Amino acid sequence: MLSGYDRVLEIFFFLRYFENKVVTLGDNNPFQKESLKLRPIADNDAVVVLEKTPIREDFLAELFRGSKLRLEMKNDIYSSYRLQAPPHLNEIKTTVVCPATEKHVKKYQRQESFLVEETGEDYRSITLPYIQEQSLSLQWVYNILEKKAEADRIVYDDPDPEVGFVLLPDLKWDQKQVDDLYLIAIARQKDIKSLRDLSSEHLPLLQNIFQRGKEAILQRYDLPASKLRVYLHYQPSYYHLHVHFTKLGYDAPGCGVERAHLLSDVIQNLQADPQFYKTRTLSFPLRADDGLLGRFKEAGRL
Amino acid sequence: MLSGYDRVLEIFFFLRYFENKVVTLGDNNPFQKESLKLRPIADNDAVVVLEKTPIREDFLAELFRGSKLRLEMKNDIYSSYRLQAPPHLNEIKTTVVCPATEKHVKKYQRQESFLVEETGEDYRSITLPYIQEQSLSLQWVYNILEKKAEADRIVYDDPDPEVGFVLLPDLKWDQKQVDDLYLIAIARQKDIKSLRDLSSEHLPLLQNIFQRGKEAILQRYDLPASKLRVYLHYQPSYYHLHVHFTKLGYDAPGCGVERAHLLSDVIQNLQADPQFYKTRTLSFPLRADDGLLGRFKEAGRL
Repeated sequence: MLSGYDRVLEIFFFLRYFENKVVTLGDNNPFQKESLKLRPIADNDAVVVLEKTPIREDFLAELFRGSKLRLEMKNDIYSSYRLQAPPHLNEIKTTVVCPATEKHVKKYQRQESFLVEETGEDYRSITLPYIQEQSLSLQWVYNILEKKAEADRIVYDDPDPEVGFVLLPDLKWDQKQVDDLYLIAIARQKDIKSLRDLSSEHLPLLQNIFQRGKEAILQRYDLPASKLRVYLHYQPSYYHLHVHFTKLGYDAPGCGVERAHLLSDVIQNLQADPQFYKTRTLSFPLRADDGLLGRFKEAGRL
Repeated sequence: MLSGYDRVLEIFFFLRYFENKVVTLGDNNPFQKESLKLRPIADNDAVVVLEKTPIREDFLAELFRGSKLRLEMKNDIYSSYRLQAPPHLNEIKTTVVCPATEKHVKKYQRQESFLVEETGEDYRSITLPYIQEQSLSLQWVYNILEKKAEADRIVYDDPDPEVGFVLLPDLKWDQKQVDDLYLIAIARQKDIKSLRDLSSEHLPLLQNIFQRGKEAILQRYDLPASKLRVYLHYQPSYYHLHVHFTKLGYDAPGCGVERAHLLSDVIQNLQADPQFYKTRTLSFPLRADDGLLGRFKEAGRL
């Protein structure tokens, strides 16, 4: 039995030996990061994560001095180059998990996503039946609303049954700094699954969450509304109406235009057309392993 | 007077010569990207942007074979290393703007942003006059449309004066892998500054860009529409209508809900209301040093 250290060296030796054959990527991650699953030695899997790290300011002068440049393109005052840096100034962070279980492998695998265009009719014939079949438990949401869980984390509570909501930090936020502030407002009304269920009758609720949510964040975190991004997800990750409050400038997961809908736009859209979200075609990404994507494929809608 | 090309070489020569003295960073960007402002030669500023690009799958075997590993940490099944790769397998994308105006320097510096809510009236009384005063040169855009520059980079060209456009890779994309695919469609019509100028008469143009842009990307890059995020920026960084095509899953700069508007939504909005973008309140972030933010402040709109 090899020690962990030798095992890692073995992985690379194995790669060196078999070259193209073994590099079966489990990932397709564009974020300067690749993770790959290898089956290098004996019966054990290994996960190797490669990650390009931020450029260090204190290396810059040395970097320029020691690098080679190759011209790629030139137009007017703009030009671009490929810079080949000395290896020790441009290291790649490498993390190895070995031996890795299936659970490790899955955790590091990134799944491809596909953009789906859902008409109002698609929602009623494909998405809604799928959500109803799944009927995932929302007990954890009710526990928060009823203060049976996370009660000490609540930032603001409006008990009104119609327009009320609970505001609390999202689990992704460690609350150590406001730079990556992330809170969730959970509506007290239980019958609104998502954006698709909203109509003009919900305007008082939405306006209340928007207004009081911003006020509560200003009071608690000294962060004004002009520093906040306030939005809903579609598809949401759970089907009970909730609104995301994140700090502007923080690249929060899920704040991309393909999934997020600014609450200010949602309010205006419903003011202009009470049935806006029942009739519109909405685009959103679904992961390759999402059951809902399968349903869209079966229906010939992808 | 040096040519643009020599000037760039001069910048690096200058850096090589003066070393630590000149590298005054204008940025503090943690996202694998640094931009720096240099005052290298004569009276001209230059902006140099360094960017680490995604790891290429097809280089992986060679990368492992040719790299050195240094152990950093080991704990149970987890270990981490610093990997020193051969320079040609780990290039840094380098973009140079030279000579650079104060505006260019500002554009590349990272600053705090503030969310502005611009009504239709705000646009006419604050934003439009500001854009007109600035009247930044669009010569580089016209160079592309007239094939005086970057002609060899054009991916698709529809010469129709009404609905035509040129599709080409954005400068941010090095075209080495489709994982971070980023193309721009530039409309041939010259009188559309932004989203705010759009009305239902532009639907044929928008639909043509949407349809033919997706087709051209499928043909050239084998990437179907379901892998694309197609959107406009408001505010845009230059006031000539253009549309962004980026790969879904790639966290492209500016694809957040606070600045990006899905083209499919823009088309639906104009179909429902020809004056949608003239009357709506639009939210967008402005950097602390943006002159337009100052105008909103002066007008008491922040």
